[in-house]
Amino acid sequence: MLIGVPLETAQGETRVAVTPETAKKLKAQGHTVKVQSGAGVAASAPDEAYTAVGAEICDRATAFGCELVLKVRSPDAQELALMKPGTTLVGMLNPFDKPGLQALASAGLTAFALEAAPRTTRAQSMDVLSSQANIGGYKAVMMAADKYQRLFPMLMTAAGTIKAARVVILGVGVAGLQAIATAKRLGAVIEASDVRPSVKEQVESLGAKFIEVPYETPEEKEAAEGVGGYARPMPQSWLDRQKVEVAKRVAQADIVISTALIPGRAAPVLVTEDMVRSMKPGSVIVDMAAGRGADGVGGNCPLTEAGKTVNKHGVTIIGETNLPALVAADSSSLYARNVLDFLKLVITKEGALHVPADDDIVLACLMAQGGELKKN
Amino acid sequence: MLIGVPLETAQGETRVAVTPETAKKLKAQGHTVKVQSGAGVAASAPDEAYTAVGAEICDRATAFGCELVLKVRSPDAQELALMKPGTTLVGMLNPFDKPGLQALASAGLTAFALEAAPRTTRAQSMDVLSSQANIGGYKAVMMAADKYQRLFPMLMTAAGTIKAARVVILGVGVAGLQAIATAKRLGAVIEASDVRPSVKEQVESLGAKFIEVPYETPEEKEAAEGVGGYARPMPQSWLDRQKVEVAKRVAQADIVISTALIPGRAAPVLVTEDMVRSMKPGSVIVDMAAGRGADGVGGNCPLTEAGKTVNKHGVTIIGETNLPALVAADSSSLYARNVLDFLKLVITKEGALHVPADDDIVLACLMAQGGELKKN
Repeated sequence: MLIGVPLETAQGETRVAVTPETAKKLKAQGHTVKVQSGAGVAASAPDEAYTAVGAEICDRATAFGCELVLKVRSPDAQELALMKPGTTLVGMLNPFDKPGLQALASAGLTAFALEAAPRTTRAQSMDVLSSQANIGGYKAVMMAADKYQRLFPMLMTAAGTIKAARVVILGVGVAGLQAIATAKRLGAVIEASDVRPSVKEQVESLGAKFIEVPYETPEEKEAAEGVGGYARPMPQSWLDRQKVEVAKRVAQADIVISTALIPGRAAPVLVTEDMVRSMKPGSVIVDMAAGRGADGVGGNCPLTEAGKTVNKHGVTIIGETNLPALVAADSSSLYARNVLDFLKLVITKEGALHVPADDDIVLACLMAQGGELKKN
Repeated sequence: MLIGVPLETAQGETRVAVTPETAKKLKAQGHTVKVQSGAGVAASAPDEAYTAVGAEICDRATAFGCELVLKVRSPDAQELALMKPGTTLVGMLNPFDKPGLQALASAGLTAFALEAAPRTTRAQSMDVLSSQANIGGYKAVMMAADKYQRLFPMLMTAAGTIKAARVVILGVGVAGLQAIATAKRLGAVIEASDVRPSVKEQVESLGAKFIEVPYETPEEKEAAEGVGGYARPMPQSWLDRQKVEVAKRVAQADIVISTALIPGRAAPVLVTEDMVRSMKPGSVIVDMAAGRGADGVGGNCPLTEAGKTVNKHGVTIIGETNLPALVAADSSSLYARNVLDFLKLVITKEGALHVPADDDIVLACLMAQGGELKKN
């Protein structure tokens, strides 16, 4: 099959959907891989790295003209115009963006959005949200360390002791856990919070402290312990007390990293302007939900400005919206492996495209087929 | 005594010679501390932090008009004009810059350059070269990590494994040791080299590997082992073979951090253009000797451009010349403690300035007194 790999053109996007590593594997499966010149440069993969494994370097139109196009970000209108009806597209296509998906359907594409894969064991190796959040959590800490005008580790020197940085992580999903691990590696003292008290064990296993909120009613205790192994959402009374506890820790923190995202909905406010005002001069907030707040600019903090680093009340607030793109080589490496694994589900042994009607992962990712919108 | 703390004006300088912590102590010793407005802002110490401990906020002329002026960098001509003859100045005054020192002498100052302190046990707590190199070594790794488009630690994820970064550290003084420690914290695999084989133990104690070069002659062995506990410079034959070994490791490295400085002389070339060409695309060099090479632009690598980050042969070369200034709060904190400790040697219990004639540290640091140049 002819597989095209275009250079990504979204602003700030540095990743590439196929790396020399996966190009080699696709080639070994009998496919022809056509990579747009320069597609991998920002991800430390120059054209020669692709030709060395048997891929061909081509121009933009050729890459988009292939039978199967592998991308990172959803194509814009100009890119869509370069794709023939019947083309198969795999990428991160924003499954909650109905107009965007409609455009893909109208162009006659068969389109798979990898973010929509179910979070099951079988889908883990193609879980792009996890693979990219992992890198995002690492980079969030590194950006905080870059702006923070002190060291992370405690140092005992001839000129006296330097205290370790105090880091508070809000939201302990994949990104939050990697942020804890990275800050811990650097020697920080870490506290973490989550609306699911059940993550306490994971937090502690990484050497951080879970910000605990005692249960005051049987209802709260039952919700936390769950029924049949599944925790239930915590009652509002508990969440309200948690906010008070978190605010106290944020006031003492040098670094706050907030990671709370809800798919398809606005990110919750976790760090209010009053909380920012309570922080020490020189403190740093990395808002990993930047641009996902209700207004499309803020994030978990309303003072965040998406895509910018701002100083408010003496606190630096980093609103980077695409952290994985700042670690382009490794985020591409993981993403390309995710894509490669997904392709196994939709390419037959003979090398032809086939959309199985009974595969839950394929069906969950299928956004458009035969001119028809499959989702929303 | 009236102590003045001006805002530093050298380009990129963010440090301050007195922090709220040391201002408080000077105040407790009975001195009046006058801090130029904004002097500490970049180091996370706003004016209010100084007034809170009893310091006074003043303008530039007042700060320079004090009896004792505490600075980070040597004053420029305009600043010198604000200082009265007889003023005492303490700072990093470039003890090898004869014209600069002559200007201080001509202005009638009593000037102490803290970089000139002997490297003895008693002088350790005022050793500004060590305190700042420590921070520089940390920041060098953090800058490398920022530019490097992969992760430092090894990660095992559902999408496969990410390899740990390979870091090579050239020169194992204070900066090199802290660079090893920081890269190790982040999970890198580290090799280090130094012209003194005796540092092997320190390198290994931090979890890095020393790049070993076997001794081929009794002369080499004897030089390495030393006589009476002191190692001697290694013979050229050994240094030549070391270069070959280092070149092999640099070719395999993801990150190279070079730290070799010789006080008062040009920095040696450790990473040649050929070695840069041998590195992988996306690799990063941090040249801590940037601007200290024979041409005043390069450093341990001739392709380095002081004050810039450049890409040569696919390798990012960071030529930052003032790394401690990028961690302004902690580098100021250590520097200010160095200054405070030094002042104990030149201020009597009654609070008057007194230059003892028999103190080796004071004499080593004294660059000018009574209109006379004391050094060079």
